[in-house]
Amino acid sequence: MRPDPDDHEESPRPRSRRLPRSVRERQILDAAVEVYAARGFHLASMDEISEVAGISKPMIYAYLGSKEELFVACIQREATRLIEAISTAVDPEVGPDEQLWRGLRVFFDYVQRNRASWVLLHRQAPAGGEPFAAEFGQWRERAMVLIASLLARATEGAAQPMQPQQMEPFAAALVGAAESLLDWWVEHPEHTADGLAMRLMNLAWMGFGDLVEGRSWSPGGDASNGAAFD
Amino acid sequence: MRPDPDDHEESPRPRSRRLPRSVRERQILDAAVEVYAARGFHLASMDEISEVAGISKPMIYAYLGSKEELFVACIQREATRLIEAISTAVDPEVGPDEQLWRGLRVFFDYVQRNRASWVLLHRQAPAGGEPFAAEFGQWRERAMVLIASLLARATEGAAQPMQPQQMEPFAAALVGAAESLLDWWVEHPEHTADGLAMRLMNLAWMGFGDLVEGRSWSPGGDASNGAAFD
Repeated sequence: MRPDPDDHEESPRPRSRRLPRSVRERQILDAAVEVYAARGFHLASMDEISEVAGISKPMIYAYLGSKEELFVACIQREATRLIEAISTAVDPEVGPDEQLWRGLRVFFDYVQRNRASWVLLHRQAPAGGEPFAAEFGQWRERAMVLIASLLARATEGAAQPMQPQQMEPFAAALVGAAESLLDWWVEHPEHTADGLAMRLMNLAWMGFGDLVEGRSWSPGGDASNGAAFD
Repeated sequence: MRPDPDDHEESPRPRSRRLPRSVRERQILDAAVEVYAARGFHLASMDEISEVAGISKPMIYAYLGSKEELFVACIQREATRLIEAISTAVDPEVGPDEQLWRGLRVFFDYVQRNRASWVLLHRQAPAGGEPFAAEFGQWRERAMVLIASLLARATEGAAQPMQPQQMEPFAAALVGAAESLLDWWVEHPEHTADGLAMRLMNLAWMGFGDLVEGRSWSPGGDASNGAAFD
């Protein structure tokens, strides 16, 4: 742990007034996520992050390290938040379709409310090269393993329960489908988060086989004819 | 069209013997795809491409232009080939599930036999920055529109036929699922191309709803209990 730079400040300005370290770190990370998402790692400057955070550059370096370390810290925080948001949405007490639906809804809703977070993770981390692409890759892998275990748990009562490892390729496909749908959303902002979640739910739960027959999934277990997604 | 550099060669060496322009261009593009896929745009050198192709640098510049133009030409050729491979696999005479199955099989098989092509398109084009990321994006968009129209055609006989535009988000999800599954495959090379195609077929056609009940899709319309994918 680095020494608290406040200890050495003789005449703190108002914006540098003594705040708990955790609050300062949060302010720095909030600003850094915003700037890295907008500019990408290479074009982002510590000057801008300092300005947006209202915290001096020496204090940023003291708290969260170099520009590289700060970017990694952003990836870690945002990936953790996204995974936690999905995890808490999934309720093992409800049926597997309802679990998947809740997870997808929270995912699209979360990304809509945290665009910078998603851009940082999904676009700027891979585009920043190493070690950032690998850091994001590890978090993406963790998300897939989590989803695979959720999918496997959904088969527990079935005739042939599946192991989490068997569900991994399906989890990989589901994650890729969600990512691609989000990219598509950027070009089609007229759709709602729930509308997107509903489409992916129908593809993932029902499949094209049902969709081409006009059967679709809807919350609460109503089998409906004719899908109306938005 | 650029002048044929052969016209100005006085003492052609054996490897530079007169060949039709189309053959030379193919040799250059084959070598360029290999080198760009292995090194990425920025680290690839025209020296290496020249060496692998067995064609002089001046001739490469004369035929296909700058390093940037050559990279764009590689993206165009490889994307066209991939889309054509999938298009020709789809036979409108067979049922929609069989069409999807054929398309997925050809896709995974094609990528397995053309690894460099896929790495060039899916990894090196986006990582190369602009204009390459946008060029790849346009081809990916074209593939999605094609797939959306194929999916819409599959609903023609159904109670509620869908328009190609309505199928676009599903096509986006399907493309993302296939891409993500290919990334997963790199870490799990013990699986076969058909095994991956079968998993995605089951996710996309049947959906998790059937899978958790132990129902899976198999070629020829046999409804089977218990999925055995590889």
